[in-house]
Amino acid sequence: MEILLTNDDGIFAPGIRALTHELCKIGNVTILAPDREQSATGHAITVHHPLRVQEMEFGDDSCVKAYSVDGTPSDCVKLGAEVVLKKKPALVVSGINRGPNLGTDVLYSGTVSAALEGVILGIPSIAVSLATVEEADYAFAAKFTRIASINIVTRGLPPDTLLNINIPSLEEKDIAGVQITRLGIRRYKDVFDRRTDPRGKVYYWLAGEVIDLDEDPDTDTVAIRNNLISVTPIHFDLTKHALIQELESWTWPLEN
Amino acid sequence: MEILLTNDDGIFAPGIRALTHELCKIGNVTILAPDREQSATGHAITVHHPLRVQEMEFGDDSCVKAYSVDGTPSDCVKLGAEVVLKKKPALVVSGINRGPNLGTDVLYSGTVSAALEGVILGIPSIAVSLATVEEADYAFAAKFTRIASINIVTRGLPPDTLLNINIPSLEEKDIAGVQITRLGIRRYKDVFDRRTDPRGKVYYWLAGEVIDLDEDPDTDTVAIRNNLISVTPIHFDLTKHALIQELESWTWPLEN
Repeated sequence: MEILLTNDDGIFAPGIRALTHELCKIGNVTILAPDREQSATGHAITVHHPLRVQEMEFGDDSCVKAYSVDGTPSDCVKLGAEVVLKKKPALVVSGINRGPNLGTDVLYSGTVSAALEGVILGIPSIAVSLATVEEADYAFAAKFTRIASINIVTRGLPPDTLLNINIPSLEEKDIAGVQITRLGIRRYKDVFDRRTDPRGKVYYWLAGEVIDLDEDPDTDTVAIRNNLISVTPIHFDLTKHALIQELESWTWPLEN
Repeated sequence: MEILLTNDDGIFAPGIRALTHELCKIGNVTILAPDREQSATGHAITVHHPLRVQEMEFGDDSCVKAYSVDGTPSDCVKLGAEVVLKKKPALVVSGINRGPNLGTDVLYSGTVSAALEGVILGIPSIAVSLATVEEADYAFAAKFTRIASINIVTRGLPPDTLLNINIPSLEEKDIAGVQITRLGIRRYKDVFDRRTDPRGKVYYWLAGEVIDLDEDPDTDTVAIRNNLISVTPIHFDLTKHALIQELESWTWPLEN
């Protein structure tokens, strides 16, 4: 089985290394990952600059070919499928991200966007995040990703859908189980720090404390808080279908 | 009425200028727009760098205050609401983009992402694009945006929903009408140009010809082809709710 692996923390991050080790047990792994951290890039693609693809040494796993890319996670998936592999892999895996990708925040996530790019290209895809920004052990999260990968390839997913997986940063014995969830609603407060630079000019730095507005137990945000692995099906159709009929009843004068 | 205006073509683009002229007829306009073109940035936000906000002259419209930002369209909306206005405006308008934002492509769109940021902040929002990449006259599109803005503020939208409006680049008399649509499915073929730089090294440049895989007349892509203005309701919940029950029937062994 051919697996395309990427992330948004960059090719030198520990999460992608742990994942490579596990995914090698079930297939050939081709890594295309950004040459530096690309967090919060959302679904950016590079259109105004050329992209370089550089083959890299990646430890002694003979099942791996690795390439660094001076672009975004979505660029990596596009280049991996279209240029390096020249065919669709069986699976796109994005991660393991350092830090959670939950609720409304998935819109900003390079990790999730890379997996979305996979499903746009017609490839079953998963995004995986470890729910801590501290240094952590990725071994269990990597093992669970291997199990989820087998599940997806065996059972199949609808062509427009990826799985977004968030894993608590706990020892395996303390994980409470797996829950299928929906995306919760998150907001931030005190969003910008206002600071003054050494020359007296004002600048702003995005900060902010997360607030979960949605406390339903079926949300990913609450599942993680309850030490559960959260598995959320995500699709790329942003249409709000339920509103189409109402909008048709509005008048839309071309003259005014 | 307080209107926050942004775009992804940058503060010097003609589309935002035409829009300012029309929106001044219905409210006070505060512009925060990127200091350069930011197309295909998706929903990127700037977390690793500070942001500067620079007040600008913006013609002789006394109803306008304008600021350039060295960030993305989403940064502009966050900064506009939280730092410059210090309150929620009545409406966020993003555009007028040079070029269509249709179907699957909205995921890559800085224009649409800025409006999504608006609804995330709880503000009624619209994204507006003129469906041509050629030089064009934005006057009619700007007028229609004013009409749509009045419609939205009068009628109200659900709190998680924006309207994505695409306008054919035609004279007003040749516009066939307004259609409420869903997002069509677009793909690209021959995606990367492979080239060699002056030093003999290979690079890749994103290219590709668009293919509309979805030919239903209720899609935005087909509406534009039929010279109709397309109005698509878009929300930020990417959850594929219909799949949750099936995934619950899968087994998710923690050991394997």
